[in-house]
Amino acid sequence: MCAINTFPAPGPKADLEEGTVLSPRFGADGLITCVTTEATTGELLMVAHMNAEALARTVQTGEAWYWSRSRQELWHKGATSGQVQTVVEMLVDCDQDAIWLKVKVAGDGGCCHTGRQSCFYRKIEVTHGETRLVVA
Amino acid sequence: MCAINTFPAPGPKADLEEGTVLSPRFGADGLITCVTTEATTGELLMVAHMNAEALARTVQTGEAWYWSRSRQELWHKGATSGQVQTVVEMLVDCDQDAIWLKVKVAGDGGCCHTGRQSCFYRKIEVTHGETRLVVA
Repeated sequence: MCAINTFPAPGPKADLEEGTVLSPRFGADGLITCVTTEATTGELLMVAHMNAEALARTVQTGEAWYWSRSRQELWHKGATSGQVQTVVEMLVDCDQDAIWLKVKVAGDGGCCHTGRQSCFYRKIEVTHGETRLVVA
Repeated sequence: MCAINTFPAPGPKADLEEGTVLSPRFGADGLITCVTTEATTGELLMVAHMNAEALARTVQTGEAWYWSRSRQELWHKGATSGQVQTVVEMLVDCDQDAIWLKVKVAGDGGCCHTGRQSCFYRKIEVTHGETRLVVA
């Protein structure tokens, strides 16, 4: 298990799409997009990013780890807030450039640093081609 | 409406998080992440990217437009497949670097280029620290 944070390099398209090997396609910035939903309700909680180490730690520990782009550091979600995310299911998309975590959230069950349950608390309303954000 | 694809530059954190102005934070590559779910079931269909023009066209037309990173071109989802995505609701996250589209899909209701309904058709199973992809 020592090399678990070294994922195999992505192979041909057929392997990527139909194979059984997780070979995540990290971007030029070394990151892969992660979508996190609440395991029971399906609510979209957040969109974040993982580098190889964050993904490996998530696999190893069963808790969500991300790469904080603003702080430029590895981020064990909930380590300070108590809102630890326990992974219930983990999926990958067709071309392996996105991860989907279904989680149970500890603490107060929240996710967003603004105090909301989900980071997606505003709708984009469109009126005569003009956009306006409205709290959902 | 002529300048709808020119979104205002992101302002201070308080405006980004609590304001009513959509000021999307496109990355260095000019793209913002978009999560697309089925409006009724909530199923996660795909994760894709939008540049300012794709986002503007989505707002203007009520149908999902993305930026295809592989083809490096604007992508009206469903234009060739018939799987056009009509936007039912559109949300933005706290720091405005991710968009969430809730859509109804035309045609056969599918989304993935492999023929599946959703791009997320494989679970990541972990056994003794080793990962394996299994069709969900």
